[in-house]
Amino acid sequence: MTVADPQTARPDTAATAAALEALAARLGDRFSAGESVRDQHGRDESWHRPHRPDAVVFPETTAEVSAVCAICHRHGVPIIPYGVGSSVEGAAIPVAGGVVVSLVRMNRVLAVDPGNFDCTVQPGVQRRALNEHLRDTGLTFTVDPGADASIGGMIATRASGTNAVRYGTMAEAVRALEVVLADGTVIRTGTRARKSAAGYDLTHLFTGSEGTLGIVTEATLRLAPIPETVIAATCRFATLEAAVETAVEIMQAGIPVARVELLDAAMIEAVNAYSGTDLAVAPHLFLEFHGDPESARRDAEAAEAIATEAGGAGFAQAESAEDRARLWRARHDCAYACMANHRPKRMLTTDVCVPIPALTENILAASADAAAAGLPAPVLGHVGDGNFHMILMLDPDDPEEVARAEGVSARMVERALAAGGTCTGEHGVGLGKRDYLAREQGPEAIAVMRSLKAALDPKGLMNPGKVLPD
Amino acid sequence: MTVADPQTARPDTAATAAALEALAARLGDRFSAGESVRDQHGRDESWHRPHRPDAVVFPETTAEVSAVCAICHRHGVPIIPYGVGSSVEGAAIPVAGGVVVSLVRMNRVLAVDPGNFDCTVQPGVQRRALNEHLRDTGLTFTVDPGADASIGGMIATRASGTNAVRYGTMAEAVRALEVVLADGTVIRTGTRARKSAAGYDLTHLFTGSEGTLGIVTEATLRLAPIPETVIAATCRFATLEAAVETAVEIMQAGIPVARVELLDAAMIEAVNAYSGTDLAVAPHLFLEFHGDPESARRDAEAAEAIATEAGGAGFAQAESAEDRARLWRARHDCAYACMANHRPKRMLTTDVCVPIPALTENILAASADAAAAGLPAPVLGHVGDGNFHMILMLDPDDPEEVARAEGVSARMVERALAAGGTCTGEHGVGLGKRDYLAREQGPEAIAVMRSLKAALDPKGLMNPGKVLPD
Repeated sequence: MTVADPQTARPDTAATAAALEALAARLGDRFSAGESVRDQHGRDESWHRPHRPDAVVFPETTAEVSAVCAICHRHGVPIIPYGVGSSVEGAAIPVAGGVVVSLVRMNRVLAVDPGNFDCTVQPGVQRRALNEHLRDTGLTFTVDPGADASIGGMIATRASGTNAVRYGTMAEAVRALEVVLADGTVIRTGTRARKSAAGYDLTHLFTGSEGTLGIVTEATLRLAPIPETVIAATCRFATLEAAVETAVEIMQAGIPVARVELLDAAMIEAVNAYSGTDLAVAPHLFLEFHGDPESARRDAEAAEAIATEAGGAGFAQAESAEDRARLWRARHDCAYACMANHRPKRMLTTDVCVPIPALTENILAASADAAAAGLPAPVLGHVGDGNFHMILMLDPDDPEEVARAEGVSARMVERALAAGGTCTGEHGVGLGKRDYLAREQGPEAIAVMRSLKAALDPKGLMNPGKVLPD
Repeated sequence: MTVADPQTARPDTAATAAALEALAARLGDRFSAGESVRDQHGRDESWHRPHRPDAVVFPETTAEVSAVCAICHRHGVPIIPYGVGSSVEGAAIPVAGGVVVSLVRMNRVLAVDPGNFDCTVQPGVQRRALNEHLRDTGLTFTVDPGADASIGGMIATRASGTNAVRYGTMAEAVRALEVVLADGTVIRTGTRARKSAAGYDLTHLFTGSEGTLGIVTEATLRLAPIPETVIAATCRFATLEAAVETAVEIMQAGIPVARVELLDAAMIEAVNAYSGTDLAVAPHLFLEFHGDPESARRDAEAAEAIATEAGGAGFAQAESAEDRARLWRARHDCAYACMANHRPKRMLTTDVCVPIPALTENILAASADAAAAGLPAPVLGHVGDGNFHMILMLDPDDPEEVARAEGVSARMVERALAAGGTCTGEHGVGLGKRDYLAREQGPEAIAVMRSLKAALDPKGLMNPGKVLPD
C-alpha cells in the first residue's frame, strides 16, 4: 500500500520548518524527522492509507508535552498524539501531516492505592504491563481490548473489551485526567473520589475524544479486586443464531456473567490456524464467571442450562489458570489471526453495538450480507454488551473490493441505528466512521460537537480530520 | 427569610415584558406571572435566599420547551429549568430572575424495554413514581437521593444516593438524552446501546450541568434486576471512629455491599424524633446486601464479622420487606428530620467525597470542628463511596451564624481537596459551592468549563449564576 506524503498538500511549509527547528532544539535526540521513524508513526492496524507526519517527538514529561503543543500552536502545525498504533479506525494517522507526539516514553505507573482501588499512570503504559505491575496487590485493571493498547489510546477511544459486560468500559474506569490542550495549557479533571458532582464532566468529555481536544498526560484509573473464583467455559452451537440467542438469554436472565464472547465458525477457523487451538469449527461462546466459589458455580450452571436448552454442546470449563489464559489469549488475538490468514490484505473492522433484543437479527443479517457480497467476514462479539465486529479483509488498492466492503459496513450501521444502537461500541470514530457518526447523532448534535471542538482547539490543530465529518 | 426580587436589578424590563407576552400567547393558562406561583418556584430545600422569577411556564412537550427557549433567547431573558425544587444547593433558584420552566407536566414514562434493561422517561417523572411504574417488570431504577427528586433534576445534579456504592450514580445510569439548548435547538445524545465510542460524550456533559447548558426533555435510563435476596442490617458503635472504620474495612475487603450508610448519634436522635424509630442514640451503620440467598448471606456475615471485630453491637437484620422499607425511609428522611427538629432554621449541607483511606480522618475532623464552632451538625454518609454530609442548621438572617457554618464547611472542603477528594459528591455545585469548584478544579479547568458554557449558551441565559464562579 502506498504511503501518502501530506506535506505536498500543506500550504505553509515555512511555518512547519520553523516549528520543527524549535522542537528539535527543545527535545534534542527525542525529536526525529527521519523517514523510517515518520513512516512507523504514520500507520495503524486498519485498512486506512498511512500518511507520513512531518516529524515525531518523544516527550518524557507533561512539561515537555506542553512545550511541544505550545510550539506547534504558535506555528499552526497539527499535533497527533500516538500510543502504540493499535487503532483499527485510523485514529492516529496524521492525514494532514504535522507532528506526532509519541507517548511511548511516558510509561510509568505513578501510584497505586489499593485502599482506594485506584492507580495513577502515564499514558504510554500498556494494559498488560499495568496488570503485571499490579500483580501483588490483589487488584486488576479490567478493560482489555484485543490489542495490548496504551492506556492513553484506550482513553482516547473510550475502549472496552471482553470484561466490559461486568466491569464497564473506559467511560467507567477513568476517575481523573491530566490533559494538555492545543495551546499547551495543562488542566486537571476529576478527583480520586469514587464519584463527584463538581461541575462539567471534563473527564468524560476527554475520554473518547480521540486526541482531538487535547493530549492525556496522566490518568487515575479505577481497579477491581481479583475475584476469588474464576470459571471459564466454552460452548459450541450448530447455528450462529443459537449461539447469539443463548448470549441474549443469559443477559436477560440477569446472570452477572463476567465475559460472554461470540466467535463464528470462520473466526474459530482463523483462531485455530493462528493460535494453535483445536476448537471444533462451529459458532462458539466463550464465557467467564467471577465470584465466590458458590456464586461463580451457580452462574456457570445457570448459563450452561440456557446453552444446553438452545442446543449448545460441549460446555467445557477451562480448569487451570494456564488453560484460561490460553483461551483468552486466543480470543484477544482474533484480529491478528484474521490478518495473518489474509496477508497482505488489510482489515476493515465493523463495531456496531445494539440493544440486546435486536442483537440476533443484527448479527444474522450482517453475516448473510457479507456472504452475499462474497467477502470473507469472520464475526466476533462482546455479545453481552450487544457489540459485535465483522472483520472484512480487503486490498486497499482495489477500489471495487473496498466499495463492496464499505457497502456491507454501511448497511450494518443502518440496521444498528434503526434498532437504537451505535455505529461504534468501542473502536471510536477515527477516519472511517465520521459519516456514520453524523447519521447516528444528527446534524444538531454534530453542530454541538463542532462548537466544543472550536472552543477547545480554535485553530483545529489537534489530530485533524478525525471524529467530526468534513 | 425575605424574598429578593431580582427584577429591580435587571436592566431591560421591556425585553422581559415582550418575552412574557409571547410566552403567554404560546402557552395560555400554562403560563403564570402570579405572585404565589412565582414564589413557589423561587426556592428550594437549601438555606440560599429565594428569588422571585418573572414568570413560570408549564410546557407539556419538547416542542413547547423549544418554543419557550427560542422566545427567551430572542429577548435575552434567563431560562431556569425546574423539577420538584428539592435541590439543597440553590441549583434552581432564579437569582437573575427570568422564566422558570417547570417540567412537572412532562412526567410520563415513555417506554420500558425489560429485554434491554432500560426505560425512557420525561424529566418530570419522580423516582418513586418510576419505580412504582416498573414494579411488575422485575427491574428497578437504582439511584435514590434523599428526596423524591425528579429524574430531570437528578440528571442535572449527577445525583446518587444509598445504592450508588453498588450500582453507580446518574453518571452511569443515563444512556441517552434529548436536550433543548438555549436557542431552542433540540439535540439527541447517546443511544440505547449499553456502550458507545461514538464521538464526544455529550450525554455525560449534560449530566451534571445543572441546567446551565440546556434542558433535558427526555432520558433513557439503565435499570437493574431486582435482586433475588435482600438482607438489610443495622449495627451500632460506641464511637464514630469505629463506625467509619468498619465501613472502610468492608469496602477494602471487597465485599460487594449494596448500601453502607453512616448516621452519627445526633442524626439518630433526629431520625427517632421525626420517623418514630427507636434506635439507640449512638453512631450506626445501615447496610444492605443483594444477591442470591447464599452470596447475600455470606456478604452479610463477612460484614458482621468486621463490625463485631471493631466493637459494633446489635448487628440486627431487618427481616421483612416492611421493616426494610421503614428503615430506609427513615434514612431517606434524614434531611427532613434535621429541618423539622430545628425549624425555622435552614439547612447548609456539606457534601464532600474523599478517597476511602482518608474517610475516617475527614469525618472525625469535620465533626470535631462543628462541635468547636458550637453548631448542631448531624452527620450522615454514603460512606462506601467516601461521601458524607454534615447538616448545619442556621438562620440565614444571622450573618454571624452563617459565617460560622460557612467556616466549618470551607475547612471541610479544604481537607477533602487535600486528600484528593471533591467538594461535592452528589448535590452539585449550585450557588453555594462555586468557589470550592474553582479551588478544586483549578483556574485552567474552570476556563475550559467557561469556554464550553460560552460555546453552548453564548448569551449566558441558561440558569445563570450557577456552577461557574462569578
